[in-house]
Amino acid sequence: MTRANFASDNWAPVHPRVMEALARANDGNVPAYGDDPHTARAITLLKQHFGEKAIPHLALTGTGANVLALGSCLRPWEGVICPETAHIMANETGAPEWHLGTRLITVPTPDGRLTVEALRSRIKGMGNEHKVQPKVVSISQATEFGTVYSPDELRALCEVAHGAGLYVHMDGARLANAAASANVGLADICTGVDVLSFGATKNGAMGAEAVIFFNPALAEGFLYRRKQGMQLASKMRYVAAQFVGLLEDDTWLANARHANAMAKRLAEGFRHLGFQMTQPVESNHVFAILPAERIAPLERAGSFYIWAPERSEYRFVCSFATSPEEVDGFLAAAA
Amino acid sequence: MTRANFASDNWAPVHPRVMEALARANDGNVPAYGDDPHTARAITLLKQHFGEKAIPHLALTGTGANVLALGSCLRPWEGVICPETAHIMANETGAPEWHLGTRLITVPTPDGRLTVEALRSRIKGMGNEHKVQPKVVSISQATEFGTVYSPDELRALCEVAHGAGLYVHMDGARLANAAASANVGLADICTGVDVLSFGATKNGAMGAEAVIFFNPALAEGFLYRRKQGMQLASKMRYVAAQFVGLLEDDTWLANARHANAMAKRLAEGFRHLGFQMTQPVESNHVFAILPAERIAPLERAGSFYIWAPERSEYRFVCSFATSPEEVDGFLAAAA
Amino acid sequence: MTRANFASDNWAPVHPRVMEALARANDGNVPAYGDDPHTARAITLLKQHFGEKAIPHLALTGTGANVLALGSCLRPWEGVICPETAHIMANETGAPEWHLGTRLITVPTPDGRLTVEALRSRIKGMGNEHKVQPKVVSISQATEFGTVYSPDELRALCEVAHGAGLYVHMDGARLANAAASANVGLADICTGVDVLSFGATKNGAMGAEAVIFFNPALAEGFLYRRKQGMQLASKMRYVAAQFVGLLEDDTWLANARHANAMAKRLAEGFRHLGFQMTQPVESNHVFAILPAERIAPLERAGSFYIWAPERSEYRFVCSFATSPEEVDGFLAAAA
Amino acid sequence: MTRANFASDNWAPVHPRVMEALARANDGNVPAYGDDPHTARAITLLKQHFGEKAIPHLALTGTGANVLALGSCLRPWEGVICPETAHIMANETGAPEWHLGTRLITVPTPDGRLTVEALRSRIKGMGNEHKVQPKVVSISQATEFGTVYSPDELRALCEVAHGAGLYVHMDGARLANAAASANVGLADICTGVDVLSFGATKNGAMGAEAVIFFNPALAEGFLYRRKQGMQLASKMRYVAAQFVGLLEDDTWLANARHANAMAKRLAEGFRHLGFQMTQPVESNHVFAILPAERIAPLERAGSFYIWAPERSEYRFVCSFATSPEEVDGFLAAAA
Repeated sequence: MTRANFASDNWAPVHPRVMEALARANDGNVPAYGDDPHTARAITLLKQHFGEKAIPHLALTGTGANVLALGSCLRPWEGVICPETAHIMANETGAPEWHLGTRLITVPTPDGRLTVEALRSRIKGMGNEHKVQPKVVSISQATEFGTVYSPDELRALCEVAHGAGLYVHMDGARLANAAASANVGLADICTGVDVLSFGATKNGAMGAEAVIFFNPALAEGFLYRRKQGMQLASKMRYVAAQFVGLLEDDTWLANARHANAMAKRLAEGFRHLGFQMTQPVESNHVFAILPAERIAPLERAGSFYIWAPERSEYRFVCSFATSPEEVDGFLAAAA
Repeated sequence: MTRANFASDNWAPVHPRVMEALARANDGNVPAYGDDPHTARAITLLKQHFGEKAIPHLALTGTGANVLALGSCLRPWEGVICPETAHIMANETGAPEWHLGTRLITVPTPDGRLTVEALRSRIKGMGNEHKVQPKVVSISQATEFGTVYSPDELRALCEVAHGAGLYVHMDGARLANAAASANVGLADICTGVDVLSFGATKNGAMGAEAVIFFNPALAEGFLYRRKQGMQLASKMRYVAAQFVGLLEDDTWLANARHANAMAKRLAEGFRHLGFQMTQPVESNHVFAILPAERIAPLERAGSFYIWAPERSEYRFVCSFATSPEEVDGFLAAAA
Repeated sequence: MTRANFASDNWAPVHPRVMEALARANDGNVPAYGDDPHTARAITLLKQHFGEKAIPHLALTGTGANVLALGSCLRPWEGVICPETAHIMANETGAPEWHLGTRLITVPTPDGRLTVEALRSRIKGMGNEHKVQPKVVSISQATEFGTVYSPDELRALCEVAHGAGLYVHMDGARLANAAASANVGLADICTGVDVLSFGATKNGAMGAEAVIFFNPALAEGFLYRRKQGMQLASKMRYVAAQFVGLLEDDTWLANARHANAMAKRLAEGFRHLGFQMTQPVESNHVFAILPAERIAPLERAGSFYIWAPERSEYRFVCSFATSPEEVDGFLAAAA
Repeated sequence: MTRANFASDNWAPVHPRVMEALARANDGNVPAYGDDPHTARAITLLKQHFGEKAIPHLALTGTGANVLALGSCLRPWEGVICPETAHIMANETGAPEWHLGTRLITVPTPDGRLTVEALRSRIKGMGNEHKVQPKVVSISQATEFGTVYSPDELRALCEVAHGAGLYVHMDGARLANAAASANVGLADICTGVDVLSFGATKNGAMGAEAVIFFNPALAEGFLYRRKQGMQLASKMRYVAAQFVGLLEDDTWLANARHANAMAKRLAEGFRHLGFQMTQPVESNHVFAILPAERIAPLERAGSFYIWAPERSEYRFVCSFATSPEEVDGFLAAAA
């Protein structure tokens, strides 16, 4: 029997609809660098999902999309407020610092969600020439803990940020999971933000990201920034096709719902086994304390990450490709 | 009838062998970020082609590979000597300057090939604290004019560069075309260089590049550099699979030979038509002066780039996907 | 009566010995950029104070010296561990981030001194390509709270840092105060560090800093780094002369002792007045809680900084130019 | 007899008026970082000379002022058109590239002056996402050859630049010499530019520069940029005092006139000796071809730079401190 995968939604393969879209796009010559009908179609679909006023551009990696998006907001002396568990802080090898020369101004959060109070605590030193000036708030939707900002929470954060002259960036590497969790559309779960990194890769793509501007002033010059930022594919149609494959027929939603449902199923199983969950299961992540004697059999049964060794906390991530049998088999190994 | 494509080898689709390799790789869960069997296979194949001592790493775009490779050689005050037509100079929106803070020290060349004399003319100011210190020579193989450095020319350049304490970087976006042109292996056409950007995209891939170190000291820390450099794919197996599709069974060579042959065919046709060729046709590029009255019918028959409007010079590029019929039909339109 | 100055040792004028040295240096033509006898003399004096193996270079500002020193230690993906109150973190507008692309990895400290435990807690993620790699520990001597690392504390920190492959940088903007406090020489109070920013400005200079390498490998290429780093004065002799003025005849020591003594005098006065001191007074800083009713008369009597408004904590800094009468008059206003 | 100095105006000492101004400023405590009456006075004087709408800020080095000024104009993908002999290109170790990530787009000039035609030849690739976008024209007044742009030449350049959406930066390290040469005020010799680096050091200061904005939009955020740019002196009053010493009583003009007159005297002597001058002598520089047999005696008599060894061309620079006797004695050695 194959080991179950709860290590990451990045370990999953590419969804068949994406493979089909890639095959369809592989037909004859088309102009390079995005001046092709596939890219035009992807942009149209992105606007359908994010609003006609949204300005979407394609990119290649999540880190790339984040750096391009943040770079569009920042001058040299300006910083980015974010949770200390943010992907840009914890998992991008200092890419924002290197490429943008910026500082990430972090704040601890119990569940990955920035609160209005935490945000306010980091807006300081404004107008003091010796201090990095906060200029962007960056939040992840869903967060790195799988938790989801409600539209109300989002509105409150945006109000505080905009009131203080800050932009709001959202890292939407798992925006689909957040939208599915809240049972709303993609646009509803990022209302108010100025610029979004929208990731398709974890949702079933091969490698496709978009930077989507809701604040049009920030989009100025983006084409130069993207090319210089090493995020412009020459055969762009194949990045575009991945979005087409996921956004047409709402495959994105089916995939996200499935991943979220599998996480719920795993969490329920854990609950029955008496495992303590350390985060609410709001999308496709489960964080749990594993009893010492269950660890070895579970590691034989599947892959997953240790989160906090000092308290025996582990992370489990589900994807569109996680099967109910995979979850149940894994739970059986724990029983 | 479809318009012929001589605009770019980037306008071509993905070769069927690459699509097949992608489909084969799309099987179940594998670890992310390159810790998977497909990446291992691609690395093995790259070492078979470039030598067991070569240190290959995968990347996403040509600009990305160039920036990562150059960054591995440079300290802040060091510069890169290159032809003024080099892709890094002419077509990357200042990516080396922005990401590395370096200066490109350019030299005019009639045919895209750096000569020993031209190189020597730019090695100056050494040891003067007020001057950017040349540290890398960057050459393209094949060049942006489709010309090819012979192993002897390459050896002579490397000797001068290394003798002056400089590294040699090769932009091998079209290395396959150069190897096919010289009828030697991939390793033979880059012997002596310290680090190579090896591009598969123009040869028939979807979007796949490699940075290959021959000087192992330069490879130190590359994994951090790549991740920070926004060039690490999470689902790396699909980048790897593209190399597998092209390097197994020497599809790369068949593709390059075909593209080169189509350029020869086009050039011969131009010659018969009495068009002046402005560059030797050594790989998949043709540069020609078009008589004024031929331009309109040719533009209806196919896509190609204007190179130097002041002298009516145009560029034509062939790819693995260029068909003899495409060439002949285009030539017929010119007749 | 003039208001007393406890705002900063930067508010103080230039010491007469420094003015005399500047006047002596102002004699005829000498080569620019440090190739002059005054600079040679300053280097000789710095080596006398810091050891014959020390490699000193002059610079212009404290932020400049810090950035040049840290830059000598760092590759793009490497970070700097420092107390969250470090000057590089709190008061340099993100200069290390902008110029070096680095991340400051901060740790809270009660008194500005990094402990071995705090340092160890930040050395993590080593070898993980997704994580910024800690490479430098930066500590201030004296700290921004006026506290001083003992040679034993310093040795312990250096052992941990070097054992983990990290360099140690010291921000010695107030190194003279630390040495005077410990009653040892300048070299004794920075033993073990790899590179030092040695500031003369707060000790009585006009604007003169030095970057002093104890680890010679880090000094390689520094002249290029300094010129590129906008820290090379054309008329360097006048920067050099300031060091001559302070280092000859141990004026630096007299100045530092005086400043420290004035801080002690102020602290004793505060104690008599029943004010609570929040930091040990080890050099030229005093931190105290001011009773609400004393604030207005004190602000009329002198200048000083509010440190933590929420607990009515204020900062007082003394300099070589602080007179006993200034201290006593200020204390009288508080009585 | 002392050797004459024609090596550089940087080899000259500090003018007595500047020393006096420094001594006057050395009186008691004043706030740091420019919030002091001496800085206020310098700003007032700069506005008197450059116009009430000018926005002057003090800085420390010429390279620093240039980098801050250019940085105020540029986004990451934008470049700077300048003569290939510009100081920013030839003598700043790549500081603009490192700190700003920009590209210098150079053009050869026979005499250091950019012409309208040369400028137009470099404004290209506009709107092409693969190309660095020219955004600033940087010219030196006087040039590195001592030549001077007339107000008419300047107006024509600014018209072309502004018409194409480019800013104009002037490196005014020797603006005083240019104004004295044209017999107009400082403001008249830079009319039309958007931002000026105004150097006092070569005119008789110790080390004092100013960045002066005429385009107020570019000045936004400059205080953060300067501090981050390592160009903010803590004891700023001493930078300010240098401007006070030179701008009050028009000492700057007397100094510049004297330096220019000495260059004329030297050039006339050379002419009598039959030496060929290779540049017009418009300010304080003389470029001449030295007959082989005169070189040794001249090198014994004074210091000067070899400019182009292949044609025996040498550079001679005069300063406020050059005496007629120095010139005449040097000429005598050549006779």
